[in-house]
Amino acid sequence: MAKPSLPSGTRDFSPDTVRKRTYIFDTIRKVFELYGFQPLETPAMENLDTLMGKYGEEGDKLIFKILNNGLNDPKNIDKAKAAFENVLQGKNDKNLTERALRYDLTIPFARYVAMNHGQLTLPFKRYQVQPVWRADRPQKGRYREFYQCDADVVGSNSLLNEVELTSIYAEVFQRLGIPVEIRLNNRKILAALAEHCGGPDKMTDITTAIDKLDKIGLDKVKEELAGRGLSSPQISSIEQYLAVSGTNSEKLHQIETLLGHLAPAREGLKELRYVLNLVDSGSGLTPQTSNLVCDFTLARGLNYYTGIIFEIKATGVQMGSIGGGGRYDDLTGLFGVPNVPGVGISFGVDRIYDVMEELQLFPAAVHTGTQVIFFNLGEEESRAGYLLMQELRGRGLRCEMYHEQAKFDKQFKYADKKNIPVAVILGSQELEDGTCVIRHLREGTQNTVAQKDLAHALGV
Amino acid sequence: MAKPSLPSGTRDFSPDTVRKRTYIFDTIRKVFELYGFQPLETPAMENLDTLMGKYGEEGDKLIFKILNNGLNDPKNIDKAKAAFENVLQGKNDKNLTERALRYDLTIPFARYVAMNHGQLTLPFKRYQVQPVWRADRPQKGRYREFYQCDADVVGSNSLLNEVELTSIYAEVFQRLGIPVEIRLNNRKILAALAEHCGGPDKMTDITTAIDKLDKIGLDKVKEELAGRGLSSPQISSIEQYLAVSGTNSEKLHQIETLLGHLAPAREGLKELRYVLNLVDSGSGLTPQTSNLVCDFTLARGLNYYTGIIFEIKATGVQMGSIGGGGRYDDLTGLFGVPNVPGVGISFGVDRIYDVMEELQLFPAAVHTGTQVIFFNLGEEESRAGYLLMQELRGRGLRCEMYHEQAKFDKQFKYADKKNIPVAVILGSQELEDGTCVIRHLREGTQNTVAQKDLAHALGV
Repeated sequence: MAKPSLPSGTRDFSPDTVRKRTYIFDTIRKVFELYGFQPLETPAMENLDTLMGKYGEEGDKLIFKILNNGLNDPKNIDKAKAAFENVLQGKNDKNLTERALRYDLTIPFARYVAMNHGQLTLPFKRYQVQPVWRADRPQKGRYREFYQCDADVVGSNSLLNEVELTSIYAEVFQRLGIPVEIRLNNRKILAALAEHCGGPDKMTDITTAIDKLDKIGLDKVKEELAGRGLSSPQISSIEQYLAVSGTNSEKLHQIETLLGHLAPAREGLKELRYVLNLVDSGSGLTPQTSNLVCDFTLARGLNYYTGIIFEIKATGVQMGSIGGGGRYDDLTGLFGVPNVPGVGISFGVDRIYDVMEELQLFPAAVHTGTQVIFFNLGEEESRAGYLLMQELRGRGLRCEMYHEQAKFDKQFKYADKKNIPVAVILGSQELEDGTCVIRHLREGTQNTVAQKDLAHALGV
Repeated sequence: MAKPSLPSGTRDFSPDTVRKRTYIFDTIRKVFELYGFQPLETPAMENLDTLMGKYGEEGDKLIFKILNNGLNDPKNIDKAKAAFENVLQGKNDKNLTERALRYDLTIPFARYVAMNHGQLTLPFKRYQVQPVWRADRPQKGRYREFYQCDADVVGSNSLLNEVELTSIYAEVFQRLGIPVEIRLNNRKILAALAEHCGGPDKMTDITTAIDKLDKIGLDKVKEELAGRGLSSPQISSIEQYLAVSGTNSEKLHQIETLLGHLAPAREGLKELRYVLNLVDSGSGLTPQTSNLVCDFTLARGLNYYTGIIFEIKATGVQMGSIGGGGRYDDLTGLFGVPNVPGVGISFGVDRIYDVMEELQLFPAAVHTGTQVIFFNLGEEESRAGYLLMQELRGRGLRCEMYHEQAKFDKQFKYADKKNIPVAVILGSQELEDGTCVIRHLREGTQNTVAQKDLAHALGV
C-alpha cells in the first residue's frame, strides 16, 4: 500500500501549532471586535464567474477550479466531450467546471456586499478570517492553502476609518508583543508625483519602479525609470522625492515643498496629518511596540488603492511585510453596484507566526494542552479519581486520566511527552486515607492533600 | 452585468449567524479541551488517492475533485487529451485531477495518524472542527459545504474513553441548554442477535432493517426481515429483542435473558453497565438536560463500528439525531498502519443550530456586536470622544464611533439597526462641561456623567 501523503503546498497543523495559530487569530479577532467589526464567513467555493477576470491574467491561472461531478455519467458524455474540446482550445466550459476555490477574501466580500446591498446597514464593518487557495508553485513560506485575515469598512469616506485601522494594527501588535513600524503613505501623493513627472499615465511606471527601491537600490531604480521613458529632470524629481527623510513632520514638510503646488499632494498630506495626529493622541502607541512612520516610497502593488495605504514591517527580524492595506474607491462596481468606497487592512498570519517563533513571543500557556493528569492505579482508585477529575473540570481545569492501569514509568512518560505540568496520584493508600498526591512534574516536587482540598490546592 | 450569486448548496454566514455558530463551536471546543482533547487541522485538499474508495461507490461520486491547473497550456495538451479519453471511459486520470476536497474529517484524521504514527504519543486524543464538502443534491438542511465537529481517541481499548465521550455529550448539551437523550447500544449485542438469528452474515440485514424501526414501524421491519430471508422463529426473536423496554437496568436484564447465552452479548452488556455506572456517578447528569438511555434498536449505519455506539436525540423537537459515534477496531489499516483502535463522537452543528433557534436558547449577549456607539457631533467633539472610546476599549468594551458628523436621527437609526444597546453622546455643551450623556437605547433612558467617570458608569 502506498504511504499516504499530503498535496504539495498544503499542511497539517498539529495540536501545538493549532494552539499557537489560534492565539494569533483570537488576538486579532478580539481587537477587530473591540473596534466594532463584525464577523463574516463566505463559502470556500464560488461560482467561477465570480472569480475569473478579477486577479489579472496570472491570477486567473492560479485559481483552483472544481471539476463538475457526473462527467462520466453516460447521459453527460456529449456535454463532456464538447467541454473537453473547449478546454483544449483554452476556453473555460461550464460543463467541465463552474465552481472554484476562493482565491482571496476581497472578491467574495465584494460579491457578498453586492448581493446584500439593499439589506446591509452602511457603513458595514466586517472582518473575515478564512483560508484561501492558490495554485502557486510551493516554496518556503508560500503555500497553496493559507489563511487571510482581513478587516474592511465599506460605504464610508471618513478618515476616521483610517485612524481606527491604524489603531487596530498598533493594538494587535502590542498585544502580540511584536515591535513594528506601521508605514503610511497616500496614493494621492504618488499621483501628484506622477503628475509632476509627466502625467497620470506615468503613475504605474513610477510606483512599479520605486516599489523595488529596498531590493535593487536607487541606481537601478533610476535606470529602470530611464528605461520606462522618464526624462533626466523627471528622474531627478523622483530622486528628490525618494531622498525625503527625518521625522514624520520633517518628511511631510519636505513633500509639501516638492509637490505642494499640486492639489492631490495637498489633499494627501492633509489626510496623513489628520490620521497621524488622531492616532498619536488616542491609541497609546508606545515606541516599544509600534512606530508610526510616513514612508513615501511605499506604493503597494494593487492598482485599486486610491488614498492612504498601509504596510507593516516587523523591526528586528528579516521578514517581508506582515500586513498591509489601503483605501479604495469602488469595491462592488465589478458586480454591478457602483459607489461603494472603503478601506481595509490585512494581517499576514503565516509570517506573524514565524516572527513570533523567532522572537519567542508565544506565552508559555499556549504550549499547555492538558493541565492535570490523573494517574490510573486500579479500578477503585480510578473511580475515585474520576469523581475528583469531574470536579476540577467543572472549575475549568483541563484534565485527563491515563486510559488504563499501567506502571508509574509509563504514565510519567506519557505526561512528559504531552507536556502536562501536574499529576494527581491516587493509589490504594491514598484511597484509604481520603488523600491524593499532587506532583509538579516540571519541578519534580510533590505534596499530599485531602481529596476534598484538591481543587483549592490547585488554585481553582 | 450578471447579478452575482452563490453556488447551489453553499451559504454566506452573516455576522449574527457567525456569532451564534461561534457560540456553539466555542462551547464544544471548550468541553473537548476540559477533557484533554487537542486540536488538529488538516488541509481542505487531500490527494485523490487518499479519499477514493473510502466512502463506498455512492460516496466516491459525491467527492468534489479539483481540476489540475495548466491543462490548456500547449505543452500539456497531449496529456490533457489522454486524460479526457480516460474520463470519458469512466476512469480517473491524474493528469486531469489528482486532488479533491475533504469529504469528512475521519479519513484525513486516519491519514494524519498513519503519516505521523511514529511521532504521536498514544493514546492520541484529538478534536477537529472544519468544513467538509459533498456534491449531494442540495435540499432543506442538506448543504454542499458544512462543518463537522469530531473528537476521537485512538490507540486505546479502554472503556474509560467511552465514559469520557458520554460525559462530553452530557456536558456540551447541558451548557447549550438542549435537553437530550444520549442513546447507547453496543454492536457486540447486535452481533449476538445476528448469531442468535442465523449467523454473522445476517448482521447487516438485521441492522439495516431495525435501523428503520422509527420510520416504518414494526410490521414493515418484519416484512423486510422476511424479504431478506429470515425465518419466522428468527423474526420472532428479533421482535422479542425490539420489545425490550423499561428502565436501563430492566432492559439490560431482558437482553441478558434473551442473549446472555452468547459471549459477545455478555461482553457488550458488561461494557454498557461499566459506562452507565461511571457516567452516572461522575458527570452530574441531571434529568433536566441529559438522559442516558440504552436503546437496543440503535444500530448506526457505518459498518466499521465494533463496540459501544452513541446517538443523540434532542427531546421536545422534531429533528433527526444531533450527534453520534462509536468504537472502531482499526482506523488506519487502510493506510498501511494496522492495530490502531479508537472511539469517536461527532456533533451535528447545523441541526444543533436549528434546535437552538427553535427553542430560543441563544443567550441575548450573542446578538450584540458593538456594545457602545459614540455619536459624532463634530470635529472637536469626536476627537474628545475618540480618547474616551480608546479608554473603554482598553477595558474590553466593544465600541465604535459613527463615521461622520450627521443628524441625531441618522445616528440613532444606525445604532438601532445594529442592535447597539448604549450610545455615548458628547456635544459642544458636554465638551465644555467635561461631561457626556449615556443613553440606553433599548430602555430609552439617559443620564449625564463626568467624562472621567464614563468607564465606571458603564461598569468597566
